Amino acid sequence: MTSNMVLSKKEYKVVGTRPVRHDGVEKVTGAARYGADVHLPGMLHGKVLRSPHAHAVIKRLDTSAAEAHPSVRAVATGRDLAEVAEGLSEVGEDIFTSLRYMRDNILAADKALYAGHPIAAVAADSPHQAEEALALIEVEYEVLPPVVDVEAAMAADAPILHERLATAGLEGEDYKADTNIASHEQYILGDVEAGFEQSDIVVEREFRTKTVHQGYIEPQSSTVVWRGDGQVVAWASSQGHFGVRDSTATVLGLPQSRVKVIPMEIGGGFGGKLSCRLEPIGAVLSKKSGRPVKLAMTREEVLTATGPTSGSYVKMKIGAKNDGRIVAAQGMLALEGGAFPGSPVGGAAACMLSPYNIENVRLDGYDVVTNKPKTTAYRAPGAPIGAFAVETIVDEICERLQMEPLEMRALNAAREGTRRADGVVNGPIGMEEIVEAVRSHPHYGSPLSDGNTGRGIAFGYWRNNTGPSCAVANVAPDGGVALTEGSMDIGGSRTAVAQQLAEVLGIPVEDVHPTVGDTEAIGYTSVTGGSGVAFKTGWAAHAAAEDIKSQLIDRAAFIWETDASNVEYVDGALRHKADPELSYTFKEIAAQLNSTGGPVVGRANVYPTGVGGSHMANLVDVEVDPETGKVQVTRYTAFQDAGKAVHPSYVEGQMQGGSVQGIGWALNEEYFYGDDGRMANTSLLDYRMPTSLDVPMIDTVIVEVPNPGHPFGVRGVGESSIVPPMAAIANAIHDAVGVRMRDLPMNPDSVVRALAEHNGAAE
Amino acid sequence: MTSNMVLSKKEYKVVGTRPVRHDGVEKVTGAARYGADVHLPGMLHGKVLRSPHAHAVIKRLDTSAAEAHPSVRAVATGRDLAEVAEGLSEVGEDIFTSLRYMRDNILAADKALYAGHPIAAVAADSPHQAEEALALIEVEYEVLPPVVDVEAAMAADAPILHERLATAGLEGEDYKADTNIASHEQYILGDVEAGFEQSDIVVEREFRTKTVHQGYIEPQSSTVVWRGDGQVVAWASSQGHFGVRDSTATVLGLPQSRVKVIPMEIGGGFGGKLSCRLEPIGAVLSKKSGRPVKLAMTREEVLTATGPTSGSYVKMKIGAKNDGRIVAAQGMLALEGGAFPGSPVGGAAACMLSPYNIENVRLDGYDVVTNKPKTTAYRAPGAPIGAFAVETIVDEICERLQMEPLEMRALNAAREGTRRADGVVNGPIGMEEIVEAVRSHPHYGSPLSDGNTGRGIAFGYWRNNTGPSCAVANVAPDGGVALTEGSMDIGGSRTAVAQQLAEVLGIPVEDVHPTVGDTEAIGYTSVTGGSGVAFKTGWAAHAAAEDIKSQLIDRAAFIWETDASNVEYVDGALRHKADPELSYTFKEIAAQLNSTGGPVVGRANVYPTGVGGSHMANLVDVEVDPETGKVQVTRYTAFQDAGKAVHPSYVEGQMQGGSVQGIGWALNEEYFYGDDGRMANTSLLDYRMPTSLDVPMIDTVIVEVPNPGHPFGVRGVGESSIVPPMAAIANAIHDAVGVRMRDLPMNPDSVVRALAEHNGAAE
Repeated sequence: MTSNMVLSKKEYKVVGTRPVRHDGVEKVTGAARYGADVHLPGMLHGKVLRSPHAHAVIKRLDTSAAEAHPSVRAVATGRDLAEVAEGLSEVGEDIFTSLRYMRDNILAADKALYAGHPIAAVAADSPHQAEEALALIEVEYEVLPPVVDVEAAMAADAPILHERLATAGLEGEDYKADTNIASHEQYILGDVEAGFEQSDIVVEREFRTKTVHQGYIEPQSSTVVWRGDGQVVAWASSQGHFGVRDSTATVLGLPQSRVKVIPMEIGGGFGGKLSCRLEPIGAVLSKKSGRPVKLAMTREEVLTATGPTSGSYVKMKIGAKNDGRIVAAQGMLALEGGAFPGSPVGGAAACMLSPYNIENVRLDGYDVVTNKPKTTAYRAPGAPIGAFAVETIVDEICERLQMEPLEMRALNAAREGTRRADGVVNGPIGMEEIVEAVRSHPHYGSPLSDGNTGRGIAFGYWRNNTGPSCAVANVAPDGGVALTEGSMDIGGSRTAVAQQLAEVLGIPVEDVHPTVGDTEAIGYTSVTGGSGVAFKTGWAAHAAAEDIKSQLIDRAAFIWETDASNVEYVDGALRHKADPELSYTFKEIAAQLNSTGGPVVGRANVYPTGVGGSHMANLVDVEVDPETGKVQVTRYTAFQDAGKAVHPSYVEGQMQGGSVQGIGWALNEEYFYGDDGRMANTSLLDYRMPTSLDVPMIDTVIVEVPNPGHPFGVRGVGESSIVPPMAAIANAIHDAVGVRMRDLPMNPDSVVRALAEHNGAAE
Repeated sequence: MTSNMVLSKKEYKVVGTRPVRHDGVEKVTGAARYGADVHLPGMLHGKVLRSPHAHAVIKRLDTSAAEAHPSVRAVATGRDLAEVAEGLSEVGEDIFTSLRYMRDNILAADKALYAGHPIAAVAADSPHQAEEALALIEVEYEVLPPVVDVEAAMAADAPILHERLATAGLEGEDYKADTNIASHEQYILGDVEAGFEQSDIVVEREFRTKTVHQGYIEPQSSTVVWRGDGQVVAWASSQGHFGVRDSTATVLGLPQSRVKVIPMEIGGGFGGKLSCRLEPIGAVLSKKSGRPVKLAMTREEVLTATGPTSGSYVKMKIGAKNDGRIVAAQGMLALEGGAFPGSPVGGAAACMLSPYNIENVRLDGYDVVTNKPKTTAYRAPGAPIGAFAVETIVDEICERLQMEPLEMRALNAAREGTRRADGVVNGPIGMEEIVEAVRSHPHYGSPLSDGNTGRGIAFGYWRNNTGPSCAVANVAPDGGVALTEGSMDIGGSRTAVAQQLAEVLGIPVEDVHPTVGDTEAIGYTSVTGGSGVAFKTGWAAHAAAEDIKSQLIDRAAFIWETDASNVEYVDGALRHKADPELSYTFKEIAAQLNSTGGPVVGRANVYPTGVGGSHMANLVDVEVDPETGKVQVTRYTAFQDAGKAVHPSYVEGQMQGGSVQGIGWALNEEYFYGDDGRMANTSLLDYRMPTSLDVPMIDTVIVEVPNPGHPFGVRGVGESSIVPPMAAIANAIHDAVGVRMRDLPMNPDSVVRALAEHNGAAE
């Protein structure tokens, strides 16, 4: 039934093909080594004592009984971490955090701010002994009332989490008292009041979403050794080992060079592994015990104490003319940062209106602290929350104007030159091409079966991100190229980056051997986030390959006793421009390097700008059971502008993965909290993510509108697929049974209640 | 009593200082990981079945009973290795070997050529089970008479080892039959017959030396996994992991890129770990079992089946004028290659006369196979054998001409412009400066105590070697620099290389974090041999630092909005030439890299020529007990031209280490063979190396005559210290008791016999 399509504009020899991934065999045979696979001689096992209270002052913390346990080798508390400067630190994906908050989230200072907040840690001979010893740590808490809802946290009488609340915005480090609102940011275009005055129709609605988790397979795990010479070495799976290095160094009060992080394979991240959590604890325990220490989280710890994304409240108003042109949009967005400031409200506000050309905009974003784990990035952070509001209202306006939803979007489509809400003017983007791709797709216009079936459409956008990136490529005598890159590979980027190197050199990608280098083996490379790896590290590979090419030209010129200007490198071969008899393939010249001046090493250290945002559309069919409220997704087509899909299978995988995560967020996933502020569903049995039985095969259409800011036209593709699903499904539910769902999740219970309310209102 | 001296010509800030080595704490605390420290999940243990016969045809080899052993997971024989082309392969230190011989030495083909020759190997769940299973392998041998002496092997009726004997010289691949002489090379200068005719005195003598071993502490060990995707990964301590990669690939019939070698710390090599021995066996066993396989040698295996240096026969004739000028030298050198061709006779012939300016020379070198383990390099390979002959005869000529040995050497000293026996014309060398250093040293001319005491002097030379080398240096935001280099670090080169990088950047060497990269992490780097690392990899570090400097100048220019030509980098700081207010220290600019264009990576791939040979002198006092024949070394001063001693302590360590190995070779060490061709002294109890009780503290004098072929003037220093000791001690024995020792070792038995003969002759 599926028919993945690529609508391609430019063909290359390697870029755009679908080779077997370099890490494939190792992963399917179980040989690949993840964070938990590290075993060192004399290694201890660490466990973390976590606050049972969502909000409590730590009055007394006595670890002496644990220290006396015969198997315990070290105990760590927040007192073991360094005093840190009051600066901001980028944790990736445009999310910044204060260094002090980062430290206090790793091991609590004087207050527990969520149930699960680390209080102390123990290293013992076995994990069981460590767990046993946790019970010997005496903590006297003064329990305070918790607040776990963004609206309640903004209320005047809310319990206050922080005595001095630092802003988490980009603008500075102001402090506030008596509030949980850490920051307020605004995006303004034109004159929104005038816009609404021109409007023939104005729709204003409220939306609420719950805390959801990325749901990566692999729990966090880290092994750290504080060596005798003072060097700290950590083996960690993360989305950015340089970030882990820098955070660990900061929290321990060390210069960055004193910490080395060795990247292990990673079992999913989706933004949730951008933050450093275990490494500083492991380092303290190792320093005290003189032994390597491994810390591995349980699933319960992952859910209660890592970084999910925000619960939210959004109030959104959109005004349009009767011809369907949107002329004004105003929104108030409040997103939870969790225990510390740093929600992705900026991402939500910056992207929610980007599919459209709207001249008058005002968006007010609030970052609000609550007694929940500190949020971190989750795939296009914030953008799905914003899009849920905007795309649902656009659908309602279409309904009221009796316009075809796709045609209204075509009418308002953003294009090259359109100014976005964050002030950026679009370069060439694929929004109109996506409209055309939807319009011409067999799914669009196909009949729905009878019954309570419906079809929804929604658009979405993620701006993507870039950063510094490094690549070093060594040519072997057989023509193989060992490529060391700085980007952690989550979803196949090793191969996508290797393809870009192979394309430039005109060699098979199988001849490239990519490796992710540790923090000493390769130069600083920014996190695997912002859908940036194929863009920035692909660029680095491109530059490293160009560096190799120019050196090979010099070698051929040396052998042919001519000037380098007489040598060209075309289709993987060197040619003497004046003598067609003289040529070398890449393999032939590779075999001669040591006899012509030594090895050839290509290197690139780049910080490319011109990252291309990615537009997306979803077309979703659902069937709703009005008795049970169950929503079954029956057909799903995802359309995305990839710029250039380096490895289409992995782009399709990203589109499918984001769609499935979106389906889970739309229909089932949520953190349940009791009145005590404790999460009630701390296992994957109770925190219900979709299984393969819950979703249809996701059909994909890759649209390629090249990003002029990249040598192969690449845009980031990893994130925008999670932006439209919730709105698309909500719109499909409305099409099926006539109710507008504006709170997530749209689970059976809420659908039944909405239907009852709707039917009651209709009666 | 010791007073190590450095006679320095040029001072630097970091080069020439004595910082703590970067790997020091890890090594003294036992945390550093050597070959045997690798433990992988599911790892098997391999053991090698070795021929008990020195010379035997393998008639039948049946491994079926071993394969049926319940704990055995795989069995390997020579049939599992690839057909290899008949080419030559460089194993380092100017020694080449045929690829086929390299393969047949790793696992025998159809003939066992020495007692210890690998016949088959087994991988089992434990080392003990593997050993047990070896006994189940049935081998039917046709035992042949062995020959274990170079002179006997050259005799007309000698047992012949190889039906078709390939030459191991550089000139081609001729085959010979009915001989054990693999090659004959000649060095000719001037007219040697005419030279002898002009001579007033001619001395001709015969010399014999025995097989000796490098005696490194760490037995060979290697762990190999043949991954599911066909990639072979080996963890190995070696003197060149790229060489191990290439040899393993060749012997397995794989392209080089299919093999990755991860360098472990090494417990000594001295040339003995240039060759690949265990990795192909481990690879075959891993491929068959699907599991990682570790092979670790016992000391007996190290002595009987790795590569010692040659036993030798040398006949040498030197002619001089009555004024002491040497006018002719002629020699015939026969050096054992062991079971396969490839003795270091070339090194012996090329260096033996290099301390002197001699116009008429003829040297004939023979490479001879015998039923002993294939020789490999041992510190200045061959040169000590040559110097033993030359320096002993020079001493005898001095005696007969009644010249002071140092003054005769001063008269004949090689200098810049002198042509050496191998045809190379000297650049600036330190021979005359060493003569002057000896002359002015308190040891020279100091009185000897009464009794049978004597003083000897000898000179020596090693030409050193170079090759391709790579370095990559990443600048961290705190100003630390992570330096990845391709050279295995045996004797502290990590620090010496880091010092050269630090010198260029003007930063403390403690801020440099050096690492040896694996074969994919760094570009091809030639072996740690030829005393080349401080020279070639120091050069690479210098070039990488220059690369960093030029990038930092661009960054400062970018920040200061000026042209790079207006910025200079002096003493570790950037300065605006026109505005003295504007400057950045290295740390200050390092903190700004990500905000000014991304990380800075310096890289170098170099193949420097201009390697400087190193001259050496030894001044040795001995006391001989005429009753027992025991020779006690009572005072020892080593003088060496280091060009520039980057880290004087490590240069002194090399000088002391080479001297001690020379003392062992001179006085005690030898392989004892029975008539059956089996080594009789296969443990370190019976193979007698010097202990700290056997040697005095070695005093050192570093002379620095800068090598103009290196940015800091570095010459290789690791090897020439082993060249003069044997002759210096022989000359001292003569000075003490009047006998000329011309066979090694000069152990109590042979000294007593020589004294008896001398006294008998005198009576």
